[in-house]
Amino acid sequence: MATVRMVEYEDASPEVREIYDDIMEKKSIDWVPNIWKAMGSHAPLLRDVWNSLQDTMKPGRLDPLTKEMIAVAVSVTNGCEYCVHSHTAAARKLGMDDEMLGEVMAVTGAFNRTNALANGYHVDVDPPILAAALGDGKSSKAAE
Amino acid sequence: MATVRMVEYEDASPEVREIYDDIMEKKSIDWVPNIWKAMGSHAPLLRDVWNSLQDTMKPGRLDPLTKEMIAVAVSVTNGCEYCVHSHTAAARKLGMDDEMLGEVMAVTGAFNRTNALANGYHVDVDPPILAAALGDGKSSKAAE
Amino acid sequence: MATVRMVEYEDASPEVREIYDDIMEKKSIDWVPNIWKAMGSHAPLLRDVWNSLQDTMKPGRLDPLTKEMIAVAVSVTNGCEYCVHSHTAAARKLGMDDEMLGEVMAVTGAFNRTNALANGYHVDVDPPILAAALGDGKSSKAAE
Amino acid sequence: MATVRMVEYEDASPEVREIYDDIMEKKSIDWVPNIWKAMGSHAPLLRDVWNSLQDTMKPGRLDPLTKEMIAVAVSVTNGCEYCVHSHTAAARKLGMDDEMLGEVMAVTGAFNRTNALANGYHVDVDPPILAAALGDGKSSKAAE
Amino acid sequence: MATVRMVEYEDASPEVREIYDDIMEKKSIDWVPNIWKAMGSHAPLLRDVWNSLQDTMKPGRLDPLTKEMIAVAVSVTNGCEYCVHSHTAAARKLGMDDEMLGEVMAVTGAFNRTNALANGYHVDVDPPILAAALGDGKSSKAAE
Amino acid sequence: MATVRMVEYEDASPEVREIYDDIMEKKSIDWVPNIWKAMGSHAPLLRDVWNSLQDTMKPGRLDPLTKEMIAVAVSVTNGCEYCVHSHTAAARKLGMDDEMLGEVMAVTGAFNRTNALANGYHVDVDPPILAAALGDGKSSKAAE
Repeated sequence: MATVRMVEYEDASPEVREIYDDIMEKKSIDWVPNIWKAMGSHAPLLRDVWNSLQDTMKPGRLDPLTKEMIAVAVSVTNGCEYCVHSHTAAARKLGMDDEMLGEVMAVTGAFNRTNALANGYHVDVDPPILAAALGDGKSSKAAE
Repeated sequence: MATVRMVEYEDASPEVREIYDDIMEKKSIDWVPNIWKAMGSHAPLLRDVWNSLQDTMKPGRLDPLTKEMIAVAVSVTNGCEYCVHSHTAAARKLGMDDEMLGEVMAVTGAFNRTNALANGYHVDVDPPILAAALGDGKSSKAAE
Repeated sequence: MATVRMVEYEDASPEVREIYDDIMEKKSIDWVPNIWKAMGSHAPLLRDVWNSLQDTMKPGRLDPLTKEMIAVAVSVTNGCEYCVHSHTAAARKLGMDDEMLGEVMAVTGAFNRTNALANGYHVDVDPPILAAALGDGKSSKAAE
Repeated sequence: MATVRMVEYEDASPEVREIYDDIMEKKSIDWVPNIWKAMGSHAPLLRDVWNSLQDTMKPGRLDPLTKEMIAVAVSVTNGCEYCVHSHTAAARKLGMDDEMLGEVMAVTGAFNRTNALANGYHVDVDPPILAAALGDGKSSKAAE
Repeated sequence: MATVRMVEYEDASPEVREIYDDIMEKKSIDWVPNIWKAMGSHAPLLRDVWNSLQDTMKPGRLDPLTKEMIAVAVSVTNGCEYCVHSHTAAARKLGMDDEMLGEVMAVTGAFNRTNALANGYHVDVDPPILAAALGDGKSSKAAE
Repeated sequence: MATVRMVEYEDASPEVREIYDDIMEKKSIDWVPNIWKAMGSHAPLLRDVWNSLQDTMKPGRLDPLTKEMIAVAVSVTNGCEYCVHSHTAAARKLGMDDEMLGEVMAVTGAFNRTNALANGYHVDVDPPILAAALGDGKSSKAAE
């Protein structure tokens, strides 16, 4: 059970209702998911998260499905039940089937294991890896 | 500093050395990264992790770059320094530039935020999301 | 469902019952919350946690509401369902309303995001920040 | 070492430079912290995080010091080195001394312990706690 | 509710069914636990995890009960509900009673607290601890 | 670098110095580890953590080495650098060699992987596992 009363559409202020309308339109649904109805209890949070997420999830160098699969991996690693379900649902709508989910899970599971091993043996980062991780910085100019 | 002495190639047993050779060949490098030299202190772990990772990371429905970007997202979420560097390096070698890394970071950051919000308001998963997350199970037959 | 049978008041040993009495008195309730009934299965743990928490939560330089809001933030970050509910309840009793909860959630969410970004880009701590974090040590004498 | 080259002020695009200027002005410093120089490599992320954080951290029902102490607690729980230092530094500037930091640490530590205990015994949330956590919803109207 | 349809024994492919048979035989049960039926949707993951776990959990220098108690501690720290239950059940079958569980919980709780304190005060590792953690490397030869 | 000045023995108040003496005596060392010198800045925290840890770590149904190996597993899972080193050092002093550490790491790594898989597929806990995890409650009476 939630820690705040869901703010239903019919009880929402005009400001909150406008954001709910935008969420439903952009997501092509005719209902407001619970996470947004919870944030409806604090309009500044609702507005900031909705604006920020739209910016983050719009098509860029990564396609929307890749972004949703990364969202699944993050939610799995954090063990967030609501998020695992909502991002798995979103990724399935974008074409992820059981085999692709299987690979996301295999990769996510594998690196939760090796993260533990690297933290546990606490090995130093090899200098060639440090250099390769940093890259050559050329693209940072292109980014400007 | 590590919690185990790195097992160098020249000090390694034939079994460990064979795995080191395979790692270097598959990764096209002529040196053994520290994480593997640490696992060289316990051959069964070295063998199991190496075999498992090769299975997990081979091209499948997801391409290698997507798998490495998911690995970055998992490592970031766990805060594993060695892993963040090694997977960022691997993803860069496969073509990830600063803009793509920026999108991986934006997505990873965004969902670490919303994971907290969903956990904090502890909202119930909406039934349509539960149904969409489960999918129709058809692909699970195809997977067999 | 729990992994241990709750030790009910009427089944408790005199030692456990005495702690239950103290918990109910200090919290001004006439029932024993489940977390304490679970620890009732291992008296040394029950006693140590209860004593330690009283010490930690007594009014000090931080007021009880601030302490409970920090408890909410920690529980949200760890994704602990029982804890999110119990600390949100405790903070509400001390005066936290939906707007204040909204701010706690906004701050907790925001820094779960930036924590990921700092871990992901793995930036060095700026020397002026290191110095400012350390402080001048004067208060450590005052603390004695 | 970072996984992206810091974008220095003199190398930054006009868009990035404008945000750097705003950061320095709002924070009353004459240098750009590394976390922002890292995000300088991906201007959309830089802009979104900076805008969002200003919104989140402005004085509201919680004062700035309380918000920074919550930021410390979140960063400690996630084990983010950069963040622990930067939020401890920010909180000290707002008046937190060693005793107050000691209380933040005591509370943060205590609830990381009890979070584990509640997760480990996996106790059900007591109905009175569920009801008290939810509150009466009155303030959610006021929030609109 | 799961994010994939459980692959029941009667619907499983011969490859998956063979692994299910092996799981039931090795665990001396006549039913397939849900975690394996979920992985049944992606045979390569099922096979890899089952093979790897058998290798990891076979009697070695640590006895099976110690390994299961470590599994409980890890699952508690990650807050994984399924895992807390399945490893607590496995440890109980191997002889863990409420007192031993109480000690596992006490230790797991205690170090989740001190982990937070060490991360929060961010103390340097003392040189004698670094040296003692590394050991003398003698056993790494014996391990080969 | 730490976020508080270490309180050295010669600068400590009589109360803190007494605890330092007790730590050194009980641990058979002639120096004070940094984690305790950091807590020396807030005497109530120092006293509470030291008292609680002695209670938790004293020989019980689990032997000291098992408790330290659980401490390693918890610290690895949380990625706490100081803690990984100090508990690995403590476990080595109690007899853990590289092979035993290898098994601790293998088990810790394995269950960080399967924790992710169970969270990701979000499977329901099987009723026989729920029952077996709960146990028969007989020992909870013995514990009183």
